[in-house]
Amino acid sequence: MIKAGIIGSTGYAGAELVRILLAHKEVEIAWYGSRSYVDEPYSSIYRNFFQVVDAKCMDDNMEELSRQADVIFTATPQGLCASLVNEDILSRCKVIDLSADFRIKDVNVYEKWYGIEHKAPQFIGEAVYGLCERNREQIRSARLVANPGCYPTCSFLSVYPLAKEGIIDMSTLIIDAKSGTSGAGRGAKTANLFCEVNENIKAYGVAGHRHTPEIEEQLSYASGEDVTISFTPHLVPMNRGILVTAYASVKKDVTPEEMRQLYHDYYDKEYFVRVLEDGVCPETRWVEGSNYVDVNIKYDPRTRRVIMMGAMDNLVKGAAGQAVQNMNLMFGFKEQEGLELLPVFP
Amino acid sequence: MIKAGIIGSTGYAGAELVRILLAHKEVEIAWYGSRSYVDEPYSSIYRNFFQVVDAKCMDDNMEELSRQADVIFTATPQGLCASLVNEDILSRCKVIDLSADFRIKDVNVYEKWYGIEHKAPQFIGEAVYGLCERNREQIRSARLVANPGCYPTCSFLSVYPLAKEGIIDMSTLIIDAKSGTSGAGRGAKTANLFCEVNENIKAYGVAGHRHTPEIEEQLSYASGEDVTISFTPHLVPMNRGILVTAYASVKKDVTPEEMRQLYHDYYDKEYFVRVLEDGVCPETRWVEGSNYVDVNIKYDPRTRRVIMMGAMDNLVKGAAGQAVQNMNLMFGFKEQEGLELLPVFP
Amino acid sequence: MIKAGIIGSTGYAGAELVRILLAHKEVEIAWYGSRSYVDEPYSSIYRNFFQVVDAKCMDDNMEELSRQADVIFTATPQGLCASLVNEDILSRCKVIDLSADFRIKDVNVYEKWYGIEHKAPQFIGEAVYGLCERNREQIRSARLVANPGCYPTCSFLSVYPLAKEGIIDMSTLIIDAKSGTSGAGRGAKTANLFCEVNENIKAYGVAGHRHTPEIEEQLSYASGEDVTISFTPHLVPMNRGILVTAYASVKKDVTPEEMRQLYHDYYDKEYFVRVLEDGVCPETRWVEGSNYVDVNIKYDPRTRRVIMMGAMDNLVKGAAGQAVQNMNLMFGFKEQEGLELLPVFP
Amino acid sequence: MIKAGIIGSTGYAGAELVRILLAHKEVEIAWYGSRSYVDEPYSSIYRNFFQVVDAKCMDDNMEELSRQADVIFTATPQGLCASLVNEDILSRCKVIDLSADFRIKDVNVYEKWYGIEHKAPQFIGEAVYGLCERNREQIRSARLVANPGCYPTCSFLSVYPLAKEGIIDMSTLIIDAKSGTSGAGRGAKTANLFCEVNENIKAYGVAGHRHTPEIEEQLSYASGEDVTISFTPHLVPMNRGILVTAYASVKKDVTPEEMRQLYHDYYDKEYFVRVLEDGVCPETRWVEGSNYVDVNIKYDPRTRRVIMMGAMDNLVKGAAGQAVQNMNLMFGFKEQEGLELLPVFP
Repeated sequence: MIKAGIIGSTGYAGAELVRILLAHKEVEIAWYGSRSYVDEPYSSIYRNFFQVVDAKCMDDNMEELSRQADVIFTATPQGLCASLVNEDILSRCKVIDLSADFRIKDVNVYEKWYGIEHKAPQFIGEAVYGLCERNREQIRSARLVANPGCYPTCSFLSVYPLAKEGIIDMSTLIIDAKSGTSGAGRGAKTANLFCEVNENIKAYGVAGHRHTPEIEEQLSYASGEDVTISFTPHLVPMNRGILVTAYASVKKDVTPEEMRQLYHDYYDKEYFVRVLEDGVCPETRWVEGSNYVDVNIKYDPRTRRVIMMGAMDNLVKGAAGQAVQNMNLMFGFKEQEGLELLPVFP
Repeated sequence: MIKAGIIGSTGYAGAELVRILLAHKEVEIAWYGSRSYVDEPYSSIYRNFFQVVDAKCMDDNMEELSRQADVIFTATPQGLCASLVNEDILSRCKVIDLSADFRIKDVNVYEKWYGIEHKAPQFIGEAVYGLCERNREQIRSARLVANPGCYPTCSFLSVYPLAKEGIIDMSTLIIDAKSGTSGAGRGAKTANLFCEVNENIKAYGVAGHRHTPEIEEQLSYASGEDVTISFTPHLVPMNRGILVTAYASVKKDVTPEEMRQLYHDYYDKEYFVRVLEDGVCPETRWVEGSNYVDVNIKYDPRTRRVIMMGAMDNLVKGAAGQAVQNMNLMFGFKEQEGLELLPVFP
Repeated sequence: MIKAGIIGSTGYAGAELVRILLAHKEVEIAWYGSRSYVDEPYSSIYRNFFQVVDAKCMDDNMEELSRQADVIFTATPQGLCASLVNEDILSRCKVIDLSADFRIKDVNVYEKWYGIEHKAPQFIGEAVYGLCERNREQIRSARLVANPGCYPTCSFLSVYPLAKEGIIDMSTLIIDAKSGTSGAGRGAKTANLFCEVNENIKAYGVAGHRHTPEIEEQLSYASGEDVTISFTPHLVPMNRGILVTAYASVKKDVTPEEMRQLYHDYYDKEYFVRVLEDGVCPETRWVEGSNYVDVNIKYDPRTRRVIMMGAMDNLVKGAAGQAVQNMNLMFGFKEQEGLELLPVFP
Repeated sequence: MIKAGIIGSTGYAGAELVRILLAHKEVEIAWYGSRSYVDEPYSSIYRNFFQVVDAKCMDDNMEELSRQADVIFTATPQGLCASLVNEDILSRCKVIDLSADFRIKDVNVYEKWYGIEHKAPQFIGEAVYGLCERNREQIRSARLVANPGCYPTCSFLSVYPLAKEGIIDMSTLIIDAKSGTSGAGRGAKTANLFCEVNENIKAYGVAGHRHTPEIEEQLSYASGEDVTISFTPHLVPMNRGILVTAYASVKKDVTPEEMRQLYHDYYDKEYFVRVLEDGVCPETRWVEGSNYVDVNIKYDPRTRRVIMMGAMDNLVKGAAGQAVQNMNLMFGFKEQEGLELLPVFP
């Protein structure tokens, strides 16, 4: 039984961490951090946990927390984890950062896209990008894991086999993504009010969303070339879920069956990635509440493009679930421990 | 490890049974019944179970099923269970009927409100009304359990302590209930299309909904008098959840604190009933996906009425979860086995 | 052609006033007031009016506005209109207040329920309660109209004929109301975020909502007795619409047909009140975007109660549409001028 | 005052035609056709029109209808209009077909994509593709207008200026579209039930949607080359609205400002096409209920691609509104007559 602390436990990703960790056999939550609600009972913020969680919210004293916990999750806006983490903390305690602070290896790229100074660039090198299906071995021994962004996770896993095998022309890759509104966080902003989001769909961050360089970096590693993509996220009137529809030209002479076989080769051994049957498109409803990513492709002979699709729950595989998957690897637990969540439908 | 069969496993309640039973340590699902989809893979109907359930759908041969299973759940329209069940089956196998067939003790009342002839009135007497918080002991030894309706469960639990203790004038009781759309089932009806339900609220079955006599019967037992109520259900544009707002005049000289204390007295020992803090109203979002019922009351000194409120997930505590709770009691498992589901929010 | 000014034009009710007035033949909008957005183009806040409205937002200088406009609408939180209005302004310009400031005749009741001091009690007496179907004649000559609240409008019109005719026992009246989320306004509050409202239903303001005394006052006038009611509003995950379900015991010996006939007697001549066919329940989707109120009743012989139901669009008949209806009366225009809006479905 | 008949008036597009035509000064609806509801009052199907429409539903006798009406709208599934129309009818009466029957000039393409035999190929040649912004003059004198599909309308208008001016490489064009659920029609299908659509997003018809050849044909005319595109529609949990996000490589040396200027050049004179301000993305909520199409582009210097975006109401500009716009042109009415509908928000 290890002890976990959560900094930022009252955001949506933080609350999902609580939901998952409470049912995890090997973990006890020792610290419900939330700067905005210090001393308020956690279950008065998230009443789903009434009579389940007794604890009160704590501040974000990572120093102190690192003495009480074996692992710290930071589910906070970018910049906070980098400003708090230090060698002392890392020597005592593992850190899984759900923010973007340690995802991008080139600090200049980070600072340019996020518009803030990185306060702990010395740890970028050792931080492991926590996409378990990709970096499983390094994660096992990491002290600091950069938990991937929601869009990057779904985008990468949807495209990975064809990128890695050099099947698609990476310069033609376009990712059109759609997300539920929990991805926008729990901040009290007019733009996220029910009446503003409901009965609407919009693109945002067009040609400038911060997840772009993260996706590009990971796909560059995978494909072995410098990748620049078009990435457009959209806001969908639903609570959870991300759907990725990606397009690329096929540059090798392969059949659709061979392409689909690659997905099976890459993912059939993966517990959380489901390659759907031929002709079945991923839908967010089939993964809601679970750590699954459903993927599939469709080849279009008219355009010689392949459409790569993926669906997952942005709060689970896109945030808290993946963080726990990382924790499981880091502590030698069974990888799917606490994550055998069945999708909830309807 | 017992074996369970589900007749009607492709309705929403049936699918929720699957979700719950798959994660239940003591049960294996041996029969996914679905007359409409015989021989089709279950996971092609509910793709959330892709790579989780391999079985194909079976017909509704209860006779045969009773030889293979220890317990049969019938999640079918009223009339089917009564037309299939017989002494042979009951001698081999326990039956939990999620339909209304065995909920009402007076067969005339059943036939009048449901408009069909009851095909197995001989079993009405022995059937136990499966509201665990109320009939726990009889359920343990029952062969046939009538799983309560969704509205009756939430209505009864919201009102029970004050009805039982004679605090409220039962002749003044009015129950105004609101339900998510999964309660309307998965039948392809125009009225349940997305565009018909979305952005709308309506009452239905006003002064004539079939759950009325069921609520009245149970409240009559509780209060010791013949209860006739006003009951109005409403359809809400959301997937899951039932909210009950009940009104009654207070006839005894009690304080609000004393009334709230009664709820604590009745429910503090109940795992699945949560009496909220003073002033906090139940909301369906806080119980979604779980077997909890959240209840609370508010006394209005201006009218000398008490407003009794309850919220639960209609597919869990209102159907599949309660059915599993009954199964747990009938087989001597821990009552909350497989039901320690944390509510999923958002 | 008269000139209208709107104080609070960037709230939802204000924006609906804009939508209606822009299509009104006899009115020109001269002032888009919005303290929060002074000098910003109105159409940058409400982009539906892009290339339709050129004006910029103005402050809430009612003094100056009263020199430029023939009528002022105040679509602002309670207290503001009372703090700004004065004899000078009223001598120059008609005022239609969409807030609660002048709805309640007893200033003590206002101050108790709203928790603020009334800054202009001297005008309460002359203010006319702007429920056109009820006070048509007085409205025609009013300088100051108190536009009714959304819940009171729907509640009153649903209950009025039976209250007025002494058919129901007013001491048994219970109003259970449900509203779309635009009723909660456009303020950036966590409780109104998409993910908090979506997939949820809750009661709020139980036994204490501020619209209670307003409904009671109007029903007292109608019935000729002192009315105290139970009133419970609920928040529904939809943008627009209010549904009222009201319950009362029938105290006179009348048939259901006679009761329904009273609704026809009272409302058949009313353009905006539609008495539905026998057995048809009001639904908010059938009135969305229009100034209609749909009403109907159902008598329950088992309980001797009548269930009175009403549905309307909270932003139209519940706010902006009724305000324009008042304006039409005050300026001698055709009552339905600019309000012949057909409901938009789906 | 002309007389209009609607075949298929009880589908969503048909009902929207009713809403628009009822408020149109120059038109009277003479025939509410609906094979499924013959002899039922139209307002019992669409209760928003209670006390507004008295007529009963009629069969789809186009022959008879053509004797009573000046214009016939067919808002029916593909195949019906082609099977009913003939020279006699066209000699008496103008026909605006909202189905796909006369949109595609090559009958083989039609038959291949729609999988049915075309019953009236002799009229394909004379039928005018009713995209008013493109074919205004031919529409004025047409007897038979093929009203464009919803996706094609929004796709074409979003891309047109850059396609026509040869700015983009048409072989790189990818259109990712998202639609509200009213686009799926009112048929009672399980896939369109509330609980199936709500809280979900999915792609459908990937690399095979029937609107593909229609978009390609129109863009081929515009660009002067043979265009083959990737087109992927998605289903969004909202009632109305289509959003198009289109991607193409820029092949000419133009600045973003020059590209945006082209949109102004093409559309500033168009009443229904709004070119948004620089940096503002189209959103469906800003056009809901109106005949507007909002468009904008964003150039991405990193990829040298331009993202072209458009939003409109699928039932208005994507169906009924455009049909009325066509009618206005065909009968010499003001083009925006009856279509000056302000978008309804929220």
